[in-house]
Amino acid sequence: MLESFIPVATDSDFPLENLPWGVWEWREPGSSAPSIHVGVALGEHCVSATTLQAAGYLQDLPGAPSGVFSHGRLNEFMGSGQPAWRAARQQLQRLLASGEGAVRDDLELRQRAIHPASDVRMLLPAEVGDYTDFYASRQHATNVGVMFRGAANALQPNWLHLPVGYHGRSSSIVPSGVHVHRPRGQLLPAGAAAPVFGPSAQVDFELEVAAVMGPGNPLGCPIPLAEAWSHVFGLVLLNDWSARDIQKWEYVPLGPFNGKNWATQISPWVVTLDALEPFRTALPPQTEPEVLPYLREEAPYRVTYDVDLAVDIVPAVPHDSGSGSGRAATVTRSNLKNLYWSFAQMVAHHTAGGCSLRPGDLLGSGTISGDTPGSRGCLLELTWAGRDELELRAERRQGEELEGGAAAEGPRAGAGGVGEEAGGGAGAGGELLGRRRYLEDGDTVVLRGWCGGGGGKRIGFGRCEGKLLPCR
Amino acid sequence: MLESFIPVATDSDFPLENLPWGVWEWREPGSSAPSIHVGVALGEHCVSATTLQAAGYLQDLPGAPSGVFSHGRLNEFMGSGQPAWRAARQQLQRLLASGEGAVRDDLELRQRAIHPASDVRMLLPAEVGDYTDFYASRQHATNVGVMFRGAANALQPNWLHLPVGYHGRSSSIVPSGVHVHRPRGQLLPAGAAAPVFGPSAQVDFELEVAAVMGPGNPLGCPIPLAEAWSHVFGLVLLNDWSARDIQKWEYVPLGPFNGKNWATQISPWVVTLDALEPFRTALPPQTEPEVLPYLREEAPYRVTYDVDLAVDIVPAVPHDSGSGSGRAATVTRSNLKNLYWSFAQMVAHHTAGGCSLRPGDLLGSGTISGDTPGSRGCLLELTWAGRDELELRAERRQGEELEGGAAAEGPRAGAGGVGEEAGGGAGAGGELLGRRRYLEDGDTVVLRGWCGGGGGKRIGFGRCEGKLLPCR
Ligand SMILES: [Ca+2]
Ligand SMILES: [Ca+2]
Ligand SMILES: [Mg+2]
Ligand SMILES: [Mg+2]
Ligand code: NI
Repeated sequence: MLESFIPVATDSDFPLENLPWGVWEWREPGSSAPSIHVGVALGEHCVSATTLQAAGYLQDLPGAPSGVFSHGRLNEFMGSGQPAWRAARQQLQRLLASGEGAVRDDLELRQRAIHPASDVRMLLPAEVGDYTDFYASRQHATNVGVMFRGAANALQPNWLHLPVGYHGRSSSIVPSGVHVHRPRGQLLPAGAAAPVFGPSAQVDFELEVAAVMGPGNPLGCPIPLAEAWSHVFGLVLLNDWSARDIQKWEYVPLGPFNGKNWATQISPWVVTLDALEPFRTALPPQTEPEVLPYLREEAPYRVTYDVDLAVDIVPAVPHDSGSGSGRAATVTRSNLKNLYWSFAQMVAHHTAGGCSLRPGDLLGSGTISGDTPGSRGCLLELTWAGRDELELRAERRQGEELEGGAAAEGPRAGAGGVGEEAGGGAGAGGELLGRRRYLEDGDTVVLRGWCGGGGGKRIGFGRCEGKLLPCR
Repeated sequence: MLESFIPVATDSDFPLENLPWGVWEWREPGSSAPSIHVGVALGEHCVSATTLQAAGYLQDLPGAPSGVFSHGRLNEFMGSGQPAWRAARQQLQRLLASGEGAVRDDLELRQRAIHPASDVRMLLPAEVGDYTDFYASRQHATNVGVMFRGAANALQPNWLHLPVGYHGRSSSIVPSGVHVHRPRGQLLPAGAAAPVFGPSAQVDFELEVAAVMGPGNPLGCPIPLAEAWSHVFGLVLLNDWSARDIQKWEYVPLGPFNGKNWATQISPWVVTLDALEPFRTALPPQTEPEVLPYLREEAPYRVTYDVDLAVDIVPAVPHDSGSGSGRAATVTRSNLKNLYWSFAQMVAHHTAGGCSLRPGDLLGSGTISGDTPGSRGCLLELTWAGRDELELRAERRQGEELEGGAAAEGPRAGAGGVGEEAGGGAGAGGELLGRRRYLEDGDTVVLRGWCGGGGGKRIGFGRCEGKLLPCR
């Protein structure tokens, strides 16, 4: 294992083997205005590539323009391609290693380059030119299809032939830590002949993982399947906040619109494919039906990563109660392997007609639901469109609250650590914190993702956390 | 009428009363690299606000940041709001008037600030953060609904209650003059059980007008209907290139994707609402059903503009023929008044749940079809999904060819001028140039739009022109 001179807890999401990329605002002590930094997470610190590059490090990044970390966003670095990403990763791992004194012993540089995560405000990692949301989990598509259109039409005729997706709203993308407001919209009340306008009564989360694009392609030049992964810079967690009642009334025939475009939240750290490499694994073959050649991945080359995923709800504290404050209930446990379509297939299909992808673009996987009820990735499925109540059961020891804000901290022992993750579905048996069909004002939704742990090295995604506030 | 010291033909799209905004590349004589300019069209010249502002003019624009024209894009100016737009318009009209010597008599400044349209390359007027495509013509939605879903389900239950729209692909937006390539994609051949992958055989245009957004709103803060028009900077023509066979197979249940995201073309000059003001008119009231209060526009406040629209096809020259080169057939004539939903309603609905609009965002109207067969805004409707062949009949005098490229020229007499525009539907009777069900490789599609003319002052949109090339 790699050791850094910066202390990293053994259960941290962000060991030296991870080094996910992000962008943050930091105020230098004594400075009046904050500055924006691009860099990596390491334990409970953020390491500024912006500062290190300005100090003469990180100079030889093949394919990267000079000053690639000076833009306050990662788009330019994402667009530089794998050789630059790998060179930066290797140089940072060397610079930050416990045996290397160049940065370790330069206390003035350390003070300017290594920021405690508690002192920064995380921003979006890139300007998102376009955001696409796929629908790549067969279990999710089937469950939703049954609910919206009945079992006979659950999976549409095209679903097994192509990764169905739609264009989302870039302006709706916010980083973890931002509060979101319950939307108003047009809804058709059950049994009503005409719609009404009012607050959505069916606000939901969606557990997704998004690919963050690297170089991409010019308009008119598709990316072939074999090259698709080389255009993926890394992965983030994505919560596709959804208003089911608005969506249901509006979505025919042109797809989701106001049901989806009021907030889409991502975790601030982009975990690179190089960091995920030890957890690379294969998706099952697609044989019934076999897909068309431009989408055909031969086993064992159906690449995915073994990323455990979980969603916690920290319920709003009832007005008549002093209890429950800040305690979380894990409501679903899933895994990135629960996808029918790979990100490479999404890239190849997205560009097959010539559509261009640009650095920083997001390709959301769609809700990642597994085979079991406890692995369903949204309340729509967990409560079967509100038919059933979901019990929110505490799994954390009292007194261990989820931290607010978007600070770059990994889960602590007992709060997302190893012991918890061994469990199966959503935890029954803990103290009852509340019941939900859909989200209530004041509820906080936390997405978590991690590889490994349980004795081996853990590569984590940190958190994608947002609180639902009342209608503005 | 206003007179400029720059000569403007009486049938020009761009008199001093228009002054539409655009962005272009221009190479100063003797300079090695081109520079990017922001400014307005006047007759057959482009007037650089970038140069004029750097020379000390256009300084007092309330609400605009200093150097607002120095960014090589109009986003900052669009975001500055109506007072800045009006001040710039008034100052330019004064500076460019025949009686005003400040610029007229400064030959050195004129040379740097006033560029012949034939010397420039038009770019996109703004970086498009997000592009939305609505579906706001009742005739279009009805026709397409009948074809895709049958007469019984033509207009979906939500259509009369809200302006149906979907998120498009920003990266697909290109300016007039760019060639586009026929896309490949998944198609389900008639009667087949499984899809194939190959070139689209049903490439189409869509005649649309797009609102280009001004200031917009932060996420979570809707724009009320009464304020909506103040957030519209101006209008452009938009050709939503579409592959019908790809679209038909993919669009259920999440909407159009690869059928639409391979090219979306706009005219390069944004015509401001102040220029369109003399042609402001009212849409018919919406009474069956009455819409919800957040969308309710009381007559006569259902604002639209009387903009005549036309689409020409310049057919590819058949290999076995020397004739027909460059001659255009007008295949549809419509008008912006043929919309059921106003742009203000689109803005109010789009933001009702909190979605943010940003300066430079595009809101496409959807295909603008009228009541008559000759006013249908796409080939899908004109040929009734390929059932009927459309005759391409020449209307121009031989020898008057459409110019290639995106140069900022208004239609010439006899080539989009007054005489032609008095006509009704697509012109029967001219020489037969060809027949089409869908577009063929080599076909050029030209959208035109204009107000007035026929003796009065003409306010034109210029052209949105693109040539369809074979699959790459
Ligand atoms: Ca989703
Ligand atoms: Ca359209
Ligand atoms: Mg975009
Ligand atoms: Mg965007
Ligand atoms: Ni001249």
